[in-house]
Amino acid sequence: MRVKDQHFLKKQNQSLVLEYIIQNGPISRAEIAKHMAMSPTSASRIVASLQGEQLIKEVYLHTDEVGRKATYFMANEHSVIFVGIEIDVGVVRVGLMNLIGELIIVRSFQTETDHYDHVVEFIGQMVNDLIIEQHIGKDRIAGVCVGLPGLIDNEKGTVGFSAQFNWKNVPLKQMLEQKLDCEIFIDNELKLKALAEYVSSSLPYKNVVMLGFGKGVGSALITDGEIYRGTNNMSGEIGHMTLDPYGAYCTCGNFGCLQTYIAIDFLLDEASKSRPMDSIDELVAAYKKKEKWAVNILEKASTYAGLAIKNVVCAYNPDAVFLSGSLIEEYPDIAELVIEKHSNSTLFPESYSYELHVTQMKGLGVVKGAALSVQRKLIKNFNFKGGS
Amino acid sequence: MRVKDQHFLKKQNQSLVLEYIIQNGPISRAEIAKHMAMSPTSASRIVASLQGEQLIKEVYLHTDEVGRKATYFMANEHSVIFVGIEIDVGVVRVGLMNLIGELIIVRSFQTETDHYDHVVEFIGQMVNDLIIEQHIGKDRIAGVCVGLPGLIDNEKGTVGFSAQFNWKNVPLKQMLEQKLDCEIFIDNELKLKALAEYVSSSLPYKNVVMLGFGKGVGSALITDGEIYRGTNNMSGEIGHMTLDPYGAYCTCGNFGCLQTYIAIDFLLDEASKSRPMDSIDELVAAYKKKEKWAVNILEKASTYAGLAIKNVVCAYNPDAVFLSGSLIEEYPDIAELVIEKHSNSTLFPESYSYELHVTQMKGLGVVKGAALSVQRKLIKNFNFKGGS
Repeated sequence: MRVKDQHFLKKQNQSLVLEYIIQNGPISRAEIAKHMAMSPTSASRIVASLQGEQLIKEVYLHTDEVGRKATYFMANEHSVIFVGIEIDVGVVRVGLMNLIGELIIVRSFQTETDHYDHVVEFIGQMVNDLIIEQHIGKDRIAGVCVGLPGLIDNEKGTVGFSAQFNWKNVPLKQMLEQKLDCEIFIDNELKLKALAEYVSSSLPYKNVVMLGFGKGVGSALITDGEIYRGTNNMSGEIGHMTLDPYGAYCTCGNFGCLQTYIAIDFLLDEASKSRPMDSIDELVAAYKKKEKWAVNILEKASTYAGLAIKNVVCAYNPDAVFLSGSLIEEYPDIAELVIEKHSNSTLFPESYSYELHVTQMKGLGVVKGAALSVQRKLIKNFNFKGGS
Repeated sequence: MRVKDQHFLKKQNQSLVLEYIIQNGPISRAEIAKHMAMSPTSASRIVASLQGEQLIKEVYLHTDEVGRKATYFMANEHSVIFVGIEIDVGVVRVGLMNLIGELIIVRSFQTETDHYDHVVEFIGQMVNDLIIEQHIGKDRIAGVCVGLPGLIDNEKGTVGFSAQFNWKNVPLKQMLEQKLDCEIFIDNELKLKALAEYVSSSLPYKNVVMLGFGKGVGSALITDGEIYRGTNNMSGEIGHMTLDPYGAYCTCGNFGCLQTYIAIDFLLDEASKSRPMDSIDELVAAYKKKEKWAVNILEKASTYAGLAIKNVVCAYNPDAVFLSGSLIEEYPDIAELVIEKHSNSTLFPESYSYELHVTQMKGLGVVKGAALSVQRKLIKNFNFKGGS
C-alpha cells in the first residue's frame, strides 16, 4: 500500500484533462479550468505539458464580429496511432486508430494457414506495409492490441487455447514483439467487441453484456467502463454452463453444456441427420422454405439462445445486452427468432429491465475494441512512449 | 469530470493511512512513512489529523533493554462502532463491530411477526437497548447496515421484493432512519455474506463467489474487494437461470429455473409425494437410512447444485467459491453430496482453477458482512460523522 503522491496526481490529472479535451475540444483554458474545477494556474500548467507532448494543439477561433481571435485547444489527433488487430479463421484484420478514437483505415488480409508462426509473420508484414503506405512514422505507433477467440491470458500475453485455430499455449505477445518493435497486448475477441460496443454507445450504460453465438457461445461484461475479466480472463464462458447433466456430449467432457444446443457444429450435426450439410446457409435456406425439420432445429436452438440471454441477465444484471457472432450477424432470420423466443420468457425479478440489441459493429467490433483498449490503457496511465 | 484536488488527495491519504494502521499497528511514524512511500513530514501531518479525530492513539513501547520508550500508533478501536443487522425469518440478529473489525457482541432476538412495521420497531428498540447495555454513546455509532434476503435496492434503500417475508416495495432505510438517528444502509444478505467471507479470508483472493442454497438459490461476487452489484443490485439471481425450457413450473412464471431443482420448497414438494413432510430434517433422516426415494431426491438435487457451482465458475471465473445457505450449513450430508457431485464434472477450460469451501461463518456472515460494509464505506470516504 502506497499513498498517492504529487507525481501520481500529476499523471492522473494530465490523463483526465487530455480525455476532456479529446471529448470536448476545441475548448479554452478558462473553460477547462471551470469544467474541471481547477485553478487557472493548474489548467495552464497541465495544458502546457500536454502541448509539450504534442498530444494537443492550439487553434484560433474568432470570438466576435470584429475578428478578434482567442486560443482554444483540441486533441492533436495524428500525434499517436493505436493499432487494433483481429485474428479470425483465414483472415487477419488490421485497423489504425488515431488519438481521438477514429479508425483511419481498416484492411483485411487472407491468411494461407492458421498456423501461429505464419500468422505472426504475416501480421508483422501487414502492419509494417500499412504504416509505410499511410506515411505513419513508427514512432507514432503507441501500441498494438490483438484480439482472437479462445482463452487468452492477457497478463502473460499467451493464448492458452483457441479451438478455432487449434492453438495451445502460444506466447503470442512475445512473438509479435519480435516482429513489431512496440508494446503489444492480446485479449479475447468477445471482450474487445464488448468494449467497442460500450464505447460506441451514445447511452451511458453502466453494465453491458456482449453475447456471441457462432462456433462457440460466450459472453463478455463491461462494468463501470472496464472489462470484467475474472481471475484468468476466462469469465463469461457460458457455452460450457451445464443445462442438462444427461444432455448431449460436449467437447469439454461434460454433458448438456449450453453450446451443445446452439453452436454451429452441433446444429450442423443435427441438420446432417436430415440431409448432408456443411454450412448454416443451407439450414437457413431450408428454414426459409419452411421445411419442417429445419424449422424444428432452429426453433429449438433459438429457444436455448433466448434463455442464454435470460441467464446472463440473471448472472450479471446488465442494463444492455448485445447479440453478436456469425449466427446472429450473418443470419437475420436467426437473430429475429432468438429475440422472439427470448421475449416469451417472463422476467423475474420483474424489476429487471434491460435493452436488447443486435450489435451494429458490422465486423469491425474486434478491431475497434482492440485499438480502443490500447487507447484507454495508455491515456489512463498517461504513457505514450511512441508519441513524439 | 473533475480533476483530483488536494482535498481529495488528503482524504484519500488519511483513509489509506488509517487502514494501514488498523492492519499493522502498533507502528511508528517512521515505519508508516517508509512502508507507504511518504515523506516523514506528510506522515506526521496525517497521523496528527487521525489523532485529532481520535481514530488512532499513541502507545509507548520499550525499544531496548535499558528501558527507552518510543511512540507507536495503533487504531483507537473503541472510537467508533459499526452496527450490522440481519433480518431472517422469525429472528433479527444485531452485531456491534469496532473500528478494527472485531465483533464486540452479537445477539439474536425472536420476532413475533415478520411484518415490516413490527420488524422496524423491534430493531429500533433492540439496537437502542443494546448500546445502552454496552455503555456505548450514541455519538460513537458511525452507521448501521441491515442485510436481508430479496431484491434490495441498496441505493434507494428499499426492499423491492422479499419472498421470505412477503415484503414488496418497503422503504426500509427511511423507516429505520426514523427509529435510529444515524446513517442506515440496506443490502442483500448474500452479498454481505460474500463480503464477510472475502474479508475474513487469510488468502488474497481476487474474485470470490458465495453461493446460497436454501429457500432460494443465489450467488454473490466480490471482485477486487468490492461487491459486484449489476445495475439494480440484482446480479447473481442464478436461481432463476433457466436450465430446461420445458422443466418444472417456477414461481416466476417460467419453466425449469435452477431453483426448481434444488430449493427447499421444491424438494419438500417432491418428498411429499412419498410421505407427507414439511421439513428437510425428515428428508435427510430418510436419506441417512438409505431409503431409496430420499436418496434419489437428494442425489438429483445435489447433481444440480453441483452444476450450479460449475455454472458460476463459467460466468465469473473466480478463484474461490464458498457454499452457504441452510441446505449446506445445517445438513453436512447434503454439503458432502453436492461437493462429490460437483467433482464429477470435468473442468473446461482445463485451466480454470478455484478453491471450493463450505462457508465457516457459522451464522454470523450477514451480521459481520453488514458491519464490515459500513466500516469499509466510511473508511474509504473518510467519513465518521458519528465518531467523536
